[in-house]
Amino acid sequence: MPYETILGELELIELVDPHTHIDPHAPAASSLADILGYHYYTELAHSAGLARERIEAEGISDREKVQRLAERLEPLRNTVQYSWLMQIAREFYDFDEPYLDGSNWEALFESVDRKSHAADWPDEILRQSRLTSVFLTNDFDDPLEGFDTTKYIPCLRTDDLVFHLSDESVRIRLAEATGVESGTTAQLRESLRRLFVHFKEHGAKACAISLPPDFEPRKVSASDADRVIAAMGRGKPVADEDRATAARYVFWVLAELCDEFRLPFDLMIGVHRSVYRAGVHQGRDLFDHRVSLIQYAELFNAFPQVTFAVSVLASTLNQELVSYAWIFPNVVTHGHWWYSNIPTYIEHDVAARLEAVPQSKQIAYYSDMYKLEFALPKFSMYRQALARVLSQRFVCERGWSEEAAVELGRRILRGNVRSVFGV
Amino acid sequence: MPYETILGELELIELVDPHTHIDPHAPAASSLADILGYHYYTELAHSAGLARERIEAEGISDREKVQRLAERLEPLRNTVQYSWLMQIAREFYDFDEPYLDGSNWEALFESVDRKSHAADWPDEILRQSRLTSVFLTNDFDDPLEGFDTTKYIPCLRTDDLVFHLSDESVRIRLAEATGVESGTTAQLRESLRRLFVHFKEHGAKACAISLPPDFEPRKVSASDADRVIAAMGRGKPVADEDRATAARYVFWVLAELCDEFRLPFDLMIGVHRSVYRAGVHQGRDLFDHRVSLIQYAELFNAFPQVTFAVSVLASTLNQELVSYAWIFPNVVTHGHWWYSNIPTYIEHDVAARLEAVPQSKQIAYYSDMYKLEFALPKFSMYRQALARVLSQRFVCERGWSEEAAVELGRRILRGNVRSVFGV
Amino acid sequence: MPYETILGELELIELVDPHTHIDPHAPAASSLADILGYHYYTELAHSAGLARERIEAEGISDREKVQRLAERLEPLRNTVQYSWLMQIAREFYDFDEPYLDGSNWEALFESVDRKSHAADWPDEILRQSRLTSVFLTNDFDDPLEGFDTTKYIPCLRTDDLVFHLSDESVRIRLAEATGVESGTTAQLRESLRRLFVHFKEHGAKACAISLPPDFEPRKVSASDADRVIAAMGRGKPVADEDRATAARYVFWVLAELCDEFRLPFDLMIGVHRSVYRAGVHQGRDLFDHRVSLIQYAELFNAFPQVTFAVSVLASTLNQELVSYAWIFPNVVTHGHWWYSNIPTYIEHDVAARLEAVPQSKQIAYYSDMYKLEFALPKFSMYRQALARVLSQRFVCERGWSEEAAVELGRRILRGNVRSVFGV
Repeated sequence: MPYETILGELELIELVDPHTHIDPHAPAASSLADILGYHYYTELAHSAGLARERIEAEGISDREKVQRLAERLEPLRNTVQYSWLMQIAREFYDFDEPYLDGSNWEALFESVDRKSHAADWPDEILRQSRLTSVFLTNDFDDPLEGFDTTKYIPCLRTDDLVFHLSDESVRIRLAEATGVESGTTAQLRESLRRLFVHFKEHGAKACAISLPPDFEPRKVSASDADRVIAAMGRGKPVADEDRATAARYVFWVLAELCDEFRLPFDLMIGVHRSVYRAGVHQGRDLFDHRVSLIQYAELFNAFPQVTFAVSVLASTLNQELVSYAWIFPNVVTHGHWWYSNIPTYIEHDVAARLEAVPQSKQIAYYSDMYKLEFALPKFSMYRQALARVLSQRFVCERGWSEEAAVELGRRILRGNVRSVFGV
Repeated sequence: MPYETILGELELIELVDPHTHIDPHAPAASSLADILGYHYYTELAHSAGLARERIEAEGISDREKVQRLAERLEPLRNTVQYSWLMQIAREFYDFDEPYLDGSNWEALFESVDRKSHAADWPDEILRQSRLTSVFLTNDFDDPLEGFDTTKYIPCLRTDDLVFHLSDESVRIRLAEATGVESGTTAQLRESLRRLFVHFKEHGAKACAISLPPDFEPRKVSASDADRVIAAMGRGKPVADEDRATAARYVFWVLAELCDEFRLPFDLMIGVHRSVYRAGVHQGRDLFDHRVSLIQYAELFNAFPQVTFAVSVLASTLNQELVSYAWIFPNVVTHGHWWYSNIPTYIEHDVAARLEAVPQSKQIAYYSDMYKLEFALPKFSMYRQALARVLSQRFVCERGWSEEAAVELGRRILRGNVRSVFGV
Repeated sequence: MPYETILGELELIELVDPHTHIDPHAPAASSLADILGYHYYTELAHSAGLARERIEAEGISDREKVQRLAERLEPLRNTVQYSWLMQIAREFYDFDEPYLDGSNWEALFESVDRKSHAADWPDEILRQSRLTSVFLTNDFDDPLEGFDTTKYIPCLRTDDLVFHLSDESVRIRLAEATGVESGTTAQLRESLRRLFVHFKEHGAKACAISLPPDFEPRKVSASDADRVIAAMGRGKPVADEDRATAARYVFWVLAELCDEFRLPFDLMIGVHRSVYRAGVHQGRDLFDHRVSLIQYAELFNAFPQVTFAVSVLASTLNQELVSYAWIFPNVVTHGHWWYSNIPTYIEHDVAARLEAVPQSKQIAYYSDMYKLEFALPKFSMYRQALARVLSQRFVCERGWSEEAAVELGRRILRGNVRSVFGV
């Protein structure tokens, strides 16, 4: 069976995870609450009827939170996210029950508690997951100190700078991080530049941002930029239109700095924030599929030397991504993001990418995880989808050898992380 | 083979059909013309070249209509809709020919004629189809009398109220049905409330509406609503903009009444009416895929206690539906509607739902039928698609037992109709 | 295995290719540069890092161009487009290497050189490809002389007339081709009419155009048309808005002429031109999936006697195409265009078409090729996708005989080209 053979080979590949939200100072779960508290479980349990207050109450203990969630997981058993949880419980925490529920969560809780106290536990998880390093998502004012930046690779996250520069708190953080006020475009550019210097010095390998469906990058005229940034600098109330101008201006400067500093720019396109306003923490964002990469055409044209690693939130946008990566030398496909990160969409999307995007321009997958435990089940899910596509479409349909199919998988899973990000 | 086993078990499930257009006073076909007259056959035969006048001529007899259609079915043989017809002919009407055509339609015609005269024939069809009850689609002024409302379950259809209240005929019907004029918002609200009282008293289990792609529910200000409704009440010509305001106002009141009366609100999103103006009866509507559930975010936020059972017309909107049902507690996926009701789209769409929406929040399927005969082939088609997904994605890929897969199928096919609609 | 049997039968079908860009005076490649120069290879190699200047330099020889491309094909080996190339090399040019690269291109170069000198080589390619004739894409001022129009069937391409009539060069070409100035709408209509006379006299079987996503056909008022066309005729600078009016006017006149001359109108919907401005020749166009066939509803309503053979660039638009062809008698599905012409999208799209569009209203496939060699691998890829869908969805799932499945394939591959285009 080509599927089994290919999957077996893919499972041997040592990985770098090119996008996560790991805290390098606390990379693994310190409690089962860190695992069950992942937004997938809180939002799905809430969606299935669990009141938000039950799990977000002030002062709730980890045990209470876990119990309340565990009692309400039954409606989620069909979801692929639940299967991640059970795989973690089984493979890392010796939990062999078929389901996690109100009757058996304590055993798992104790197991996590026990194992997570070992100082080398994060490294053990990495080892079991065949991960050599993971990318972080760092606030722009992160000092990037106190951890091994070759294992936990910094990545400059820029949402706050682009979309919230009118918040005084953001401007203060920026001034404190860089020693430069942002009262003029010249100052702002200099302070942003210092961020890049700081991040590059600490081994950063990418700049990243998530973008709403209606964002359309454009170069802003110098006079418009001067006016808007100066007004913000004086702490004036900012009209929506000016806020949009500032966003475009800062975004464009970031692209220029990616060019200057040779950093790939990760674009995560299509998320609307806080759509469900009463949702749980991190469980409020959704999307509008009516976004097109044509909105980014001017950007891709303007920065031919910047590699844009593009993620799309909607599977229905994948064909545009395939086509733009097929045409633009500086556009690379990147992973299967969030609402598209389920086997049905992964298979349809990766099949099209493998058929039409040069193999050197596809980064297979990232986990987007907050705790190290999740790389294993997520990459496992991805590898199975990939193995199905490689065995069906390449070995069976196109007559490829299993070796060639595995080699293609290896390239997108590992080789291109090296060639695109330099890791 | 897990597929065969799973399908066999799914076929044993007793069903409630949660959305149909059955006339409870004439639930089954009284003639083959009622079956061949279903818009799928008239519109497809017309699309393949049969002139509308040939089948919609004044005074045409049932036999003539059937003959003219039967002679022109050959181009439709590939369609899944044609397969429904042949399954009905075979399983209910002892017709064993491989095709229905101009040479053999009379035998089937006689068979329908003969069987349909038995008083218990509708119950026999229900029994053979393993249906215990079906939802209706009732006009708001339906007296709901003269039938068994536990077998034929009323559902308040509200398109006329929302989109055609400016028609004098609609306002007259509303006044006659409720005894209240709708000259002011207070009166209108009271008359709508009386509809809900009437429907609830007669066992209604849902409120339903179909919506065009550009509809975006919003709360209308009291002053705008007062002005527009009063103008309509005086019989004034109504500008498009005011008509839109009235639609939003009435829709919002309906949602408030669903909340008060604890009725789920079926939203069928995305249909443009009368796009092909010269089409056959009910064969004129199409869609524009550029609609987003973001248009409904304010509604979902405003009515957390109302369950919205959402159908989407375009398969390309299914991922949004999956994601909104995954996040919003009050959004439930509902069936595979109309242009998405073919195996290719059902499989892609149900696979994603099963992977990411809590199992308690998915209503598998409804037939949308006008005559009872159609539930059997439509549910049969659905069950086959479901069995393929369950056997492939759950048993083969995720290692589920066949029993667990069947249980998931049973839950979405039957259990959730009970828990969502209280049937 | 039904797949093997069905594929074997499909491979025996004699084909007419209903859309190509073949030059009837040089139908086959005269050099490997003609094959490797196909935009799929130049754009993909460029996308993977080959500088445009390397292959588009002035005065570069065929050998140099081929060498530079062959050396940079490695990143493309996964693409289905690369598989076309290798199939051509193998089946027409006796090249048995697994890959084409910098070390072995010369053998293939010589082989093409040698074989292409035989006068009957184009006919031999047609014979091996089981092609009896191919449609052309002729400029409106093509004399259509010097070739066999039953083998190379003229098709009137109208993009220039609709979108570039304000260019003086286009107006001059039109005047020279027809002997009529286009200074008034009456003159313009007469000159367009003469084009149709000319093309019909030379055996044209279709009128064709490619359309941007934002185009929405509408009948233009006579006064608006008169004003705009007269202004263009006087050589005045034309505002964007007037250019759009002219486009709508000319397009509508073309539809009227298709009606008068009984020519099907091929609409290729959804391409944005020159999105990637620094791209290689023909490698600059992309799309925006936010287009809907609702934009064409007025056109389809207005011309019930014109057959519109519709291609869509985005697979996400395929469901609309299926639905519009299911409802409108004059809408026919046409092929799998460009960015949708890869197995993953073909399979999903053709499956839906076969399930819901009358079998008489589907034209399976066209090659879109510039050189005859490409029909063989492209049709081969399509037939494999079709055979998978027929064997899986029709024979296995719906219980069809293999013969019936093959017959359905034959009808859409060949029969409907005959019935729709009269070939």
